[in-house]
Amino acid sequence: MKNLVGACIFGQSGGPTSVINASAAGVFLEALAQKNITKVYGAAHGIRGVLEEKLYDISQEDKAELELLKYTPSSALGSVRYKLKDAAVDETDYKRLLEVFKKYDVRYFFYNGGNDSMDTCNKISKYMKSSGWDCNIIGVPKTIDNDLFGTDHCPGYGSAAKYIATTLMEINLDAKVYDTGLVAVIEIMGRNAGWLTAAAALAGEKGLGADLIYLPEVPFDMDKFISDIKAVLAKNNNKCIVCVSEGIKNADGKYVGEFAASSTDAFGHAQLGGVAYMLADIVKQKTGIKTRAIEFSLMQRCGAHLASKTDVEEAYLAGASAVKFAVDGETDKMVIFECDRTNGYKCRSVTIPLELAANTEKKIPKEWIINDGTALSKEFIDYALPLIQGDAKAPLVDGLPRFAKLKKVFAKI
Amino acid sequence: MKNLVGACIFGQSGGPTSVINASAAGVFLEALAQKNITKVYGAAHGIRGVLEEKLYDISQEDKAELELLKYTPSSALGSVRYKLKDAAVDETDYKRLLEVFKKYDVRYFFYNGGNDSMDTCNKISKYMKSSGWDCNIIGVPKTIDNDLFGTDHCPGYGSAAKYIATTLMEINLDAKVYDTGLVAVIEIMGRNAGWLTAAAALAGEKGLGADLIYLPEVPFDMDKFISDIKAVLAKNNNKCIVCVSEGIKNADGKYVGEFAASSTDAFGHAQLGGVAYMLADIVKQKTGIKTRAIEFSLMQRCGAHLASKTDVEEAYLAGASAVKFAVDGETDKMVIFECDRTNGYKCRSVTIPLELAANTEKKIPKEWIINDGTALSKEFIDYALPLIQGDAKAPLVDGLPRFAKLKKVFAKI
Repeated sequence: MKNLVGACIFGQSGGPTSVINASAAGVFLEALAQKNITKVYGAAHGIRGVLEEKLYDISQEDKAELELLKYTPSSALGSVRYKLKDAAVDETDYKRLLEVFKKYDVRYFFYNGGNDSMDTCNKISKYMKSSGWDCNIIGVPKTIDNDLFGTDHCPGYGSAAKYIATTLMEINLDAKVYDTGLVAVIEIMGRNAGWLTAAAALAGEKGLGADLIYLPEVPFDMDKFISDIKAVLAKNNNKCIVCVSEGIKNADGKYVGEFAASSTDAFGHAQLGGVAYMLADIVKQKTGIKTRAIEFSLMQRCGAHLASKTDVEEAYLAGASAVKFAVDGETDKMVIFECDRTNGYKCRSVTIPLELAANTEKKIPKEWIINDGTALSKEFIDYALPLIQGDAKAPLVDGLPRFAKLKKVFAKI
Repeated sequence: MKNLVGACIFGQSGGPTSVINASAAGVFLEALAQKNITKVYGAAHGIRGVLEEKLYDISQEDKAELELLKYTPSSALGSVRYKLKDAAVDETDYKRLLEVFKKYDVRYFFYNGGNDSMDTCNKISKYMKSSGWDCNIIGVPKTIDNDLFGTDHCPGYGSAAKYIATTLMEINLDAKVYDTGLVAVIEIMGRNAGWLTAAAALAGEKGLGADLIYLPEVPFDMDKFISDIKAVLAKNNNKCIVCVSEGIKNADGKYVGEFAASSTDAFGHAQLGGVAYMLADIVKQKTGIKTRAIEFSLMQRCGAHLASKTDVEEAYLAGASAVKFAVDGETDKMVIFECDRTNGYKCRSVTIPLELAANTEKKIPKEWIINDGTALSKEFIDYALPLIQGDAKAPLVDGLPRFAKLKKVFAKI
C-alpha cells in the first residue's frame, strides 16, 4: 500500500452502457479534487489510446460538461476491444505502456469495463509491479450483462433492465390490441448469462410481461419451445409474448441463432436477423399464428433516457471510490458493490483482488429459474427491483436530451 | 346542426400510438361532464364492438384511471382493422349498427383512427342520415404516420418523432464508440409517407443524427444508395448512420423490402428481417465494412415513456373538442389542428368535413427533401420541432410506469 503522487489515466473498454460515462464523471471529478493526483488524463479508445499516446487533458473540460457525463450514454472517450498478450509471450505492449506511464508520470490507472477489461487491468498491474514502477491500479466494473464475479451487480445493468422492463410493458399493451392472434418474439442481449432477459420478469410483476422467458442458463429445446407456446396460445386467446436471450443454446452448447444461420445459410448469404426472426418463423410454421420478431438491439444498452437513477448514482460511486481507494494506497483491485436488501436497499463500494474478477462469469442461480425454465422466482425480483429505481436523465433542450460535449484536447508533453 | 340528447359511443381503430388513449381520456372526461350526453360507452375493438354489442360502461371507471389513460400507450379499448363495405353493396353491417344505436339511444359517435377509420366514420354518418337516425358523428384523428389530409399534424406523430430522434441520438453515440468502421441501417415505420423517418433530422440538428435519410417520397436507387454510403464512409472515418423508411420504393413503385424478399426467398422461406437487414447485407458486401441493422419496430409507436407533452395535450384536446363540437350540433366532421408557428407555437382544434379526410394521404412536400433526396430542410425542422416538446409520462411505481387499469364492465340493456 503506497500513497503516490502523480498523474492518473482513465480508460473505457468493451461495449458501452447507459451509465459508463457516469463512472467517468465519478473518476474525473474525484481525481480533479485529489491533491495527490497532479494531472487527469482520459485515454482515447481505452488501452489503445495509452499505447498511441492519445490522452485527453481532462482539466481543460468544463465542470458542467463533466457533470452531464452522468446522463450521456455510450463511452465518451471511445472504447476498444483489445486483448493484451501475456507479457511472457510478447512484452512489446507492456514496454510501451511503461514508457508512456513514465513519460506522463502516471501513478494511478483506472480501467472501466467487463471481464476482459479486468484481465487487461490485472496484466498491466502485474507488469508495473515487476518493473518496479509504482502505480496504483483499480478496475471499475461495467457491463449490462451483469456477469462480473464478486460484485452484487454491475453498473449498467440496472438501466438496461429498466429499459427492457419498461419497453416490454409497452409492447405487451401494443401486441394485445387486436382481437386476432399474435406471437411476439423479443430478442434480448446476453450471450452467456441471462440477467438482461430475466429483467422481463420485472414487467411481469405489473401484469404486462412475457408469457415465456428463455435464458442461456437453460438448454433450449425446440420441441418444448413450440409446445410451451401452444399451451399459452390455448389459454390466452391466441396471444403469446416470448422473451429470448440472444445466447440461448441447444443441449450440446451450440447457439440456437448460429444453428439457424448454418442450417438456412447454405447459399452463402449472410444471416438476416437474429434468433428472434428465426424462432418467429418457426413458430408461424408450427402454429399458423401471426408472429412478430422484435430486437431491443443497441437501444437496450444506450437508452439513457430510461436510465435508472440508482444505476447512475452507483456508476458514479464506482468511479469516484476507485479514485479514493487508489489514493488511499490500494492497487490491483476491482471495485465491487456489497448490497443489503433486508430493510430497504443499501449499497456500498468495496474492493476485491483483480484476479478474482478477471475472466469469470456470474450466471443466474439455477434455483431462481422456475416454471420448467420459462420464468424467474421471487428471489430474482427482490434482487433486481432495487436496481431500476428512479429516473435520471439529461436535461431537455428543444425537447431532446442535452448530452455532454467534451473538448477532447490532447495532452502534450 | 342539431343539439341532441342521448348516449355516446367512442371507438379506437387502426394501429395504436403512444397517445391514442389520451384522446380517449379527452372524449370520456368531456362526455361524462356534458349534460346532453346521458351515457358514455367505449366500444371493444372499435366498430366490431359496436356490431357485437360489446360496449363498456365508462361511468363505472374511476376518474383517476381515466386520467392515467393520458400516459398509457396502445388502445385501451382494443383496436380493429375492419373495413365497412359500401352500403350500396352490402347493408348488413349498417343495419346492425342502426339497431345498436337505437337500442342504446346513441346520439353521438366518436371514432379515433387514421384514413381508413375516417372512411368508416364517413360511411356510418351517411347511413344514419339516410336512415333518419339523428346522430352527431365526429372523427378524431390519430396516426404516427402523420399522413392525414387537412390537419397540420396528427396526434401520435409528435411522440413517435420524439422517440425516433431521441433514440437515434443515443444510437449515434453508441455506434461511433469503436475506432473501427460501422454502417448502421435503421428502419423506421411509414409505408407511404416519410414523416416518421424524417424525424431523424431532428437528431441531426443536435449533431447526433443520421448521415443519410431515405424516404418513400423519393424513388430508391440501389446504386446511388451504395455510392452515397461510400462517400460518407470516405469522409467520416468509415462510419455511417443511415435511416430508411420501411416504405422506400424503387422507381417502378415496388417496395424495396418486398423486392428483396422475392429475390432471396426462392426456397419458400419466409423473409427474415425487414428492409434494414436486406440493405445492411448489401452494404456489407459492397463496402466490406461491418454493418448493423436496427429496427425501431413497435417501440416507436408505443414508447409512451418518451411521449411528447405537446402531443399528449393535443391528443387530449382532439378527443375533448370532438365531444364539444358534437354537442354543439356538428356532425360528419373530423377534428383537425390549425397551428401558428410565427411567434412561438399555437395549436387550436377546428373541424373539416369527413369526406375530405377519408382516404387521402398527406406526404412530405418535395421541396422539404434536400441533398439529392437524403436530408430534410429547415422547413421540416421548423414544422416538427414544436411537436416533440416536453415530457409527459405515467407516474412510476417500483421504478416502472403505472398505466391505467380499466374495469371494462360491459353495459347491459
